[in-house]
Amino acid sequence: MPLSRAQIKYLQSLKLKKYRLRYNKFVVEGDKMVREAIRDIPQNIKAIYALPDWNAGATLPADLQTILQEVSGSELERISQQKVPNQAVAELKLEFKAPDPEKVKTGLSLYLERVQDPGNLGTILRIADWFGIAAIFLSPDTVEPFNPKVIQSSMGSVWRVPVETATYDAIQTKFPQIHWVGSSLSGSPLKNWQKKAGSMLVIGNEGKGMSPELSARCEELIFISGDPNSKAESLNAAVSTAILVSAFSNF
Amino acid sequence: MPLSRAQIKYLQSLKLKKYRLRYNKFVVEGDKMVREAIRDIPQNIKAIYALPDWNAGATLPADLQTILQEVSGSELERISQQKVPNQAVAELKLEFKAPDPEKVKTGLSLYLERVQDPGNLGTILRIADWFGIAAIFLSPDTVEPFNPKVIQSSMGSVWRVPVETATYDAIQTKFPQIHWVGSSLSGSPLKNWQKKAGSMLVIGNEGKGMSPELSARCEELIFISGDPNSKAESLNAAVSTAILVSAFSNF
Repeated sequence: MPLSRAQIKYLQSLKLKKYRLRYNKFVVEGDKMVREAIRDIPQNIKAIYALPDWNAGATLPADLQTILQEVSGSELERISQQKVPNQAVAELKLEFKAPDPEKVKTGLSLYLERVQDPGNLGTILRIADWFGIAAIFLSPDTVEPFNPKVIQSSMGSVWRVPVETATYDAIQTKFPQIHWVGSSLSGSPLKNWQKKAGSMLVIGNEGKGMSPELSARCEELIFISGDPNSKAESLNAAVSTAILVSAFSNF
Repeated sequence: MPLSRAQIKYLQSLKLKKYRLRYNKFVVEGDKMVREAIRDIPQNIKAIYALPDWNAGATLPADLQTILQEVSGSELERISQQKVPNQAVAELKLEFKAPDPEKVKTGLSLYLERVQDPGNLGTILRIADWFGIAAIFLSPDTVEPFNPKVIQSSMGSVWRVPVETATYDAIQTKFPQIHWVGSSLSGSPLKNWQKKAGSMLVIGNEGKGMSPELSARCEELIFISGDPNSKAESLNAAVSTAILVSAFSNF
C-alpha cells in the first residue's frame, strides 16, 4: 500500500522541533541506526518504513513485523531527511532515558550550558556513552537532542545515555552534595584535578564558554594545559569534553 | 574597480583540489580567519577582497594595502565558498609549514592514515596546534588539508602546525628511531602507556581504523578504556586523538 500524502507530510514535519515536540515523536534513518533502535528500544518504535529488499525486515520480531511498511525508493526519498536515503526510516517515541539518581551521586555527570552545535552535542553523547557517564543535564537553551543532526552524529547514543533538561537550581535542589567542576583558562592544570565521586562537569557554549554565574558556583576549575607558545585560541567543546571525561575515567 | 569575470572564475575554481594544486593557492574567508592569516603568514597572502566597511582594512600594513581590493556585497557572494559570506576573502599561497626534525625526534607527532572527513582533519589540526604537536604526517590518501571545510574548522591551525604528506617508509627512513604507537581495541589501557620522547601516534580511518600493516609495525598499542557495559561502538577519530594527545602531554 503506498504511503498517503498525510503520512508523508507528517513524517516530513518531524524535521522540525516544533512538530517533534507536538507529536512527541522523532525519526531515525539508515540501516545501521534503525537496527540499533530495534536492538536498544524496540518498545519505542511506532513505525518502520523500509525498502522491500531491506535485510533486517525478514528477521524482525513479530510485534515489529506488524508495524513494518514497505516503501518504494521514491517514497523513501520523500520521507527521508538525508541527502542519500539508506534503506529504512523508523518513527520513534521521543523519550529520554531517565538518570539514575544513585549513579549521579557517585559517578560523573555532564552539564551542557547553551551548547548550540548539533554536531557537538551528538559527539558529546557518543563520548558519554563510551565512558558510561551517569547523566547529561542540558540547560534549557541547549540544542534539542532529537534534532536529526544530533541523532545521526550520536550513532544511537542519544537513547542510551540518560538525558534531562534542567537548570542549575533544579539540579542543586535534587543533588545538593554534587561537586560542580568547570573548565576555564584560569583553572588549575588538568593533572591536579581532585576527582570526586558525584561530580558534575560543566561544558559551556562554543563561543562564550561557561557563564560567569555558573563559573562562580564551581568548586573546582580545570585548565587543559597545552603548549604555552600555541596561538590556538581554544579547543572545540566536544574535544574538551573528551579530554576531561577520559582524565576522570582513566587517570 | 569591479572584479573581472576571469578573477571571479579563478577564485571560484579554488573550491576544487585540482585547481588549488594547479595554481598552488587556496582561499580563507571571514573577518576572523583573514585577520589570523594577516597575523601569522602575511608573506603568503596574494590578494585580499573585502567590503568597503571591513574594519581591518584601514589598519593593514602598507604592503598588504596594495593587494587589498574592495568588493561589493554581491561580488563577495560570488567569490565566497560559504553560505553566509563574511566581510573578507583572502587568496594565499598553498604552503605547509615544514616539520622541524629535531622536534619530531624528541616530541609527539601524529600520523593520519586515510582520515577522510574534512571536519575531523580540521579538528585534529586544532588539537595539534593547542598541544604543540611536533608535526602531522598524512598518508597520501588522507583528505587534503587545504579543503575549505578543513580550513574553516581548523581555525587557522592549518598553517601553524607543521604538516607533511609521507608514507610509513619515508618517515621510517628519515626517523629510524621513532616510536610508532597505535590505538586499538586490543591495546593496553591508556594509563599504562609508556610514553617516550620521539613518538608517532597513528590515527586510522574513521570507519576501518588503522590498517593491519601499520598496526603490526607499532611497538605499542593503546586502548582508550571506557565503560565495559557500554554499547557505543567507537569514539570519533578526532575525539580519540584529543584523548591520546592530552594523555601524552598532561599525565
